[in-house]
Amino acid sequence: MTSAQRKPRLAVVLGDPAGIGPELVGRLLADPGTAAAADILLIADKGELERGMELAGKRTPYAQAASMEQADLSQGRPVLVDYRGDTQGPFERSVSTADGGRYCLATLRMALDAHANGLVDAILFAPLNKHSLHMAGMKTADEMHWFTQQVGFDGPVCEFNVLDGLWTSRVTSHIALKDVPAHITPAGVTRGIELIHKELLRSGVARPRIAVCGLNPHNGDNGSFGREEIDIIGPAVEAARARGLPVEGPFAADTIFLRVQGENRQYDAVVTMYHDQGQIAMKLMGFWRGITVQGGLPMPIVTPAHGTAFDIAGQGKANPGAMLAAFKLACRMGMDAGSSPA
Amino acid sequence: MTSAQRKPRLAVVLGDPAGIGPELVGRLLADPGTAAAADILLIADKGELERGMELAGKRTPYAQAASMEQADLSQGRPVLVDYRGDTQGPFERSVSTADGGRYCLATLRMALDAHANGLVDAILFAPLNKHSLHMAGMKTADEMHWFTQQVGFDGPVCEFNVLDGLWTSRVTSHIALKDVPAHITPAGVTRGIELIHKELLRSGVARPRIAVCGLNPHNGDNGSFGREEIDIIGPAVEAARARGLPVEGPFAADTIFLRVQGENRQYDAVVTMYHDQGQIAMKLMGFWRGITVQGGLPMPIVTPAHGTAFDIAGQGKANPGAMLAAFKLACRMGMDAGSSPA
Repeated sequence: MTSAQRKPRLAVVLGDPAGIGPELVGRLLADPGTAAAADILLIADKGELERGMELAGKRTPYAQAASMEQADLSQGRPVLVDYRGDTQGPFERSVSTADGGRYCLATLRMALDAHANGLVDAILFAPLNKHSLHMAGMKTADEMHWFTQQVGFDGPVCEFNVLDGLWTSRVTSHIALKDVPAHITPAGVTRGIELIHKELLRSGVARPRIAVCGLNPHNGDNGSFGREEIDIIGPAVEAARARGLPVEGPFAADTIFLRVQGENRQYDAVVTMYHDQGQIAMKLMGFWRGITVQGGLPMPIVTPAHGTAFDIAGQGKANPGAMLAAFKLACRMGMDAGSSPA
Repeated sequence: MTSAQRKPRLAVVLGDPAGIGPELVGRLLADPGTAAAADILLIADKGELERGMELAGKRTPYAQAASMEQADLSQGRPVLVDYRGDTQGPFERSVSTADGGRYCLATLRMALDAHANGLVDAILFAPLNKHSLHMAGMKTADEMHWFTQQVGFDGPVCEFNVLDGLWTSRVTSHIALKDVPAHITPAGVTRGIELIHKELLRSGVARPRIAVCGLNPHNGDNGSFGREEIDIIGPAVEAARARGLPVEGPFAADTIFLRVQGENRQYDAVVTMYHDQGQIAMKLMGFWRGITVQGGLPMPIVTPAHGTAFDIAGQGKANPGAMLAAFKLACRMGMDAGSSPA
């Protein structure tokens, strides 16, 4: 098979069974383009998968394998490995539970194993619930750091958000706002720039244009309220430019997104200083289309940016836009990962 | 004249002559609805006013008075008091200057006097440049605190942003991000709620519905990263509700704006914890329509939320959307202010 014919191989995980994840996977599988675009290994409880397809309103044929090693993904239809870790009985719906969290961690763990064993090129998971994960005993602040720990990766990582081809990275993420300023360091800003530059190149943007946010209102107004732009962010941007990176800033956070909104985008990526600086903008611009990439890790791991949407779970009305977009990006990143020398 | 016929009386000021302010006033005056909606006292350098009308592409007839006391505003056309404070000669364009700042402060000072003397009901000003104001010797962080100081007001004040009828207030404003958490106090949150509730009632919203933002990402995720939602904001919201105020929250900042976006708005106002929390959202939703209200002051003072736009100043292409919206709101608030017992 030539590389032009080869399809990326994706491990697909349902996310929290209490939320809209199983329905989203059902909708993804029902999309006519899905099986054509990727070879899919479903790591899921069979009952939850069936329920998800039922909620999606379409039962997509799939094969089943006793273990992931026995799964032949090249049959033109998804292959299920029926697995639910050590959880038992029905899952509660629309609430955070330790059982839901354990199910998520077990299936994600198996997806990582599938990648480690060379069976898949990328991992796509439907929404998790952080509270369920913590109830299940996850010790890290978020799933990104859990992935990092699980695969023993010690390089820099960063959660990226992607919307209609616009990328954002964060210098800080799931920490209290009061702790943000202490984490705005030259090394942190540099890492935010370098990680997203590398990932943009990997995702196929030949000449990425990167904007960097300031931290303070109006960029600190020349030091009147806050000096991080002058003392830390500005110099880090200049140093990156001096090394040839295509980066500009810092820009005032309340107007930079106007320059990347819509078709006449001036930058491909925005490096933000804290979680909500980017997330307020990205969710407003396209809540049901936004994607999260666990950036920096050795393997592509992609998920919708929205959450489990407990308020509409089980009602058959989940919007699959972000799931479909995440699938497409996972395919693109998986092709790249699969085609690079092992 | 009956109250139904009475028009609000507005003092109108050009803002920084280096920016798009004069052109915006020219466009406002050229709008056929303007003279019909308000009696207008223009406090401006005559040359700058003429230049603004020229850039706007339409010269609107106006009367002139030697002093504001001599201005008869009921002639159906604007009345100019030609005034430029102690500034002399031509203004530099598209840059911050002390001269531009002095001009702004002088004309705003006269507008405050016009209100103090009972000559106008509200003040509308075109965009200022904070750097010019500081170069001109303004000691306060922003114009809101300058107004407060000028009129000797010692009650609580808050800059409100208004977009298509959606209001936001801020518990903190022009301070460094690192100083924000220390300023999130029960009193501050309560003030943010009460001020906007009062102003919404004044602007004609009979039953205002108010949402309050959290401070930390994901509202702190049950205290995992930040406790302000649990210890400060939540209790302040509950206390306000107990007093009968129509307020809910705290809500995660990255999704609350989805619930007030567009026509199916669930709240009339959002109380934000810091400047960019609200401004990122408001500017994305309608940069050229957003308005700023200097809230809490004894008189209505309204301005476009955008700035001087030095990059397009003097080119005749400024978008007057926010200026026209600010004018309409100033009229509504001026009617209310004028009709209340003196």
